[in-house]
Amino acid sequence: MFQKILIANRGEIAVRIIRACREMGILSVAVYSEADRESLHTQLADEAVCIGKAPVADSYLNMERVLSAAIATKAQAIHPGFGFLSENEHFANMCESCGIAFIGPSGEIIGKMGNKSQARLTMMEAGIPVIPGTKEPIYEWEQGLEIAKEIGFPVMIKASSGGGGKGMRVAADISEFENHFRLAQQESINAFGDNTMYIEKYIEEPRHIEIQILADKFGKVLWLGERDCSIQRRHQKMLEESPCAVMTEELRQKMGETAALAAKAACYENAGTIEFLLDKHKNFYFMEMNTRIQVEHPVTEMVTGIDLVKEQIRIAAGEPLHMRQEEIVLKGHAIECRINAEDPERNFMPCPGTVKDLHFPGGNGVRIESALYNGYAIPPFYDSMVAKVIVHGEDREDAIRKMRSALGEVVVDGITTNLDFQYDMLNHPVFLSGNVNTNFIPEYYESEESREIDAEV
Amino acid sequence: MFQKILIANRGEIAVRIIRACREMGILSVAVYSEADRESLHTQLADEAVCIGKAPVADSYLNMERVLSAAIATKAQAIHPGFGFLSENEHFANMCESCGIAFIGPSGEIIGKMGNKSQARLTMMEAGIPVIPGTKEPIYEWEQGLEIAKEIGFPVMIKASSGGGGKGMRVAADISEFENHFRLAQQESINAFGDNTMYIEKYIEEPRHIEIQILADKFGKVLWLGERDCSIQRRHQKMLEESPCAVMTEELRQKMGETAALAAKAACYENAGTIEFLLDKHKNFYFMEMNTRIQVEHPVTEMVTGIDLVKEQIRIAAGEPLHMRQEEIVLKGHAIECRINAEDPERNFMPCPGTVKDLHFPGGNGVRIESALYNGYAIPPFYDSMVAKVIVHGEDREDAIRKMRSALGEVVVDGITTNLDFQYDMLNHPVFLSGNVNTNFIPEYYESEESREIDAEV
Repeated sequence: MFQKILIANRGEIAVRIIRACREMGILSVAVYSEADRESLHTQLADEAVCIGKAPVADSYLNMERVLSAAIATKAQAIHPGFGFLSENEHFANMCESCGIAFIGPSGEIIGKMGNKSQARLTMMEAGIPVIPGTKEPIYEWEQGLEIAKEIGFPVMIKASSGGGGKGMRVAADISEFENHFRLAQQESINAFGDNTMYIEKYIEEPRHIEIQILADKFGKVLWLGERDCSIQRRHQKMLEESPCAVMTEELRQKMGETAALAAKAACYENAGTIEFLLDKHKNFYFMEMNTRIQVEHPVTEMVTGIDLVKEQIRIAAGEPLHMRQEEIVLKGHAIECRINAEDPERNFMPCPGTVKDLHFPGGNGVRIESALYNGYAIPPFYDSMVAKVIVHGEDREDAIRKMRSALGEVVVDGITTNLDFQYDMLNHPVFLSGNVNTNFIPEYYESEESREIDAEV
Repeated sequence: MFQKILIANRGEIAVRIIRACREMGILSVAVYSEADRESLHTQLADEAVCIGKAPVADSYLNMERVLSAAIATKAQAIHPGFGFLSENEHFANMCESCGIAFIGPSGEIIGKMGNKSQARLTMMEAGIPVIPGTKEPIYEWEQGLEIAKEIGFPVMIKASSGGGGKGMRVAADISEFENHFRLAQQESINAFGDNTMYIEKYIEEPRHIEIQILADKFGKVLWLGERDCSIQRRHQKMLEESPCAVMTEELRQKMGETAALAAKAACYENAGTIEFLLDKHKNFYFMEMNTRIQVEHPVTEMVTGIDLVKEQIRIAAGEPLHMRQEEIVLKGHAIECRINAEDPERNFMPCPGTVKDLHFPGGNGVRIESALYNGYAIPPFYDSMVAKVIVHGEDREDAIRKMRSALGEVVVDGITTNLDFQYDMLNHPVFLSGNVNTNFIPEYYESEESREIDAEV
């Protein structure tokens, strides 16, 4: 087992990984930007190395500096968390070259799964159901339109390098196609320097269902049930739960086995997630594979009792997975609410600031993952997610009540958050019915106007 | 099910019960003393009623006022928590007379189990092993000495009404007997107005092992594994864990079945705990039955996944226990550390004060039960326990590491606590070995001198 791990991340996920290290008797090294000198992860780690200025390109995305910090502190492994360098093929390869274990899959697998067109091809070859659409990259709208006509409208226009809603547009009919294609492509060029697009069938009333998998270095792949992440705003998840309210044991088995097959097809190693769209007829389609730990991993931990971050570390250290598939049983129901420093009244604009008074609830089945503390000045440079509240209840109703009770106790004075928005969703009759899909927030919480404003940004 | 429950308690247990009510869709009524106007339980409950001045006799122990508050707010049930009126036979009877459900056993059972001599007789009649000693009350030291000689030294001298270490003394040999008997009896007279004593065999190197039971109104009794509460200071528990480090499946089964038999013998109803002493030869003896929820109940909740407070409420509302004995499986290992506002350097003197900065850890398997918040002025009138940190790990080693990691993150500025003391115990080689008994703290943490000083108080 490793004696020392560097955590190439910040915020609550860095804190999460530091705790896992401490619990495993492994020393932790934090890296931090000048803006994160007072951040919780910097304070909690056994060692902390400043790696540059606040902008991510100068610090958390600067591969040489992160690696130098690992070499200087004699860390034997790097945990990338999510975001930043976590799905960077080149970084994983650099780690390997330096003899430092990258806690995640190899650079080759990251590359193969990170490129959406290539991932799709890999899955189709393995017989995994994919959303009908183009197999080849598209660069011109006229070419895209021909394919869209073949598939049938509505279609989704997607940037190959896209993510987090960037470079994605739905065209409802022929008249909208050109405009939306151009907008999505331009966004992708601006954000990722890549004009590669593809087109696919737009699934109506889709649920975002993802399967957590674990794969060790010996070819063993386990699937750990599903997460329903349908509550999204602009393709950003806000609330996640496990199990899915409409899941059947039969469908879970089918999706789980498909996910394991997908992981095997990719020769996958470490923790990963296969994201599917589930349509209202219970057909499911591969969307993409996330080759890292996910923000919403705690809901799976709560229902399975398996610590995913510790498993990641064990796998990277060469340990075989010790549990058997049939031992993985989902117990109860877990929900996660992401607490973002943002203003739902002002189009969810990020609202960094200084935490004047902080109070989190405790209690049975309440878990807090947070990087906040009293007096903490949230830097304006990073993601607006500052905490997660996770609950584990006997069933969905119990978990919803528990989450309401827990959120009702949270105090984060000094900054504007989406707490009230989350609380409101937990009381929405459609959410309570369990009949949610990815249109839930757009349909019930966004005006036509706000959607148009956003579409034009 | 009840629509509204009054919580006749304060501090973290009141908060715990309010949360359970909220999660069950039940309205909660807090009662509070004038000193607790700003306390967390007063703020969190749906309604709050002031029942008098700070001294407990004028508020939390004032039965008429508590009942008046219940009647005035139309509460259908009263949860007494622990301490205060929770084991008061008369109060349970008064509730019944008023048509208010007492969430606990009947007054008759409380009375029968609360009187230690009578409880012992009941258990002996049921064939439950008890510690060799007197069956009849003793009032004179000369009479006690004769019995002590029969049993053989060392012997324990105990007040019938005693609890929390009050009215208890060990006499190592004949020469010590008279003095210790008089001291213990005087303490009992002062604290409880009762001079009834008894004598029993003093078990050397004993572990305090207790079995949690649940009993519904239909005669069904379940046992939920054991808690090892051997880490005690002056008979006050400080750290509890489940399972016990040296428990075998066979012994657990035997102790569990004995506990269930004891509950049946007492015609018990609701949640309860049978406390045993386990000697180094794995013989166990009934000590007493606690007819209420215990401070340390969360460790059982963590390893069984059963919410004991919710079960208490369901049982009191007349619901049958829905689970079967064979479904109750202990998973992982849980530890609870009590955080007391006290100074271990000054003989654990209570240290109330104002919380200037508060920070609790979150994370996987970390549970906080607390009544603290930033700026809270801890009143000097009540128990010094202000919070509990509970962890749930894969096994004992993992749980210990998790607790160390969790305690290392706790910040409670402004008051003196036993946090460092707890942290130190978690690193003690004897604790780590699992070979702890109730002599652990006296042997490794108390000087001969401090023990003598205390004995004379």
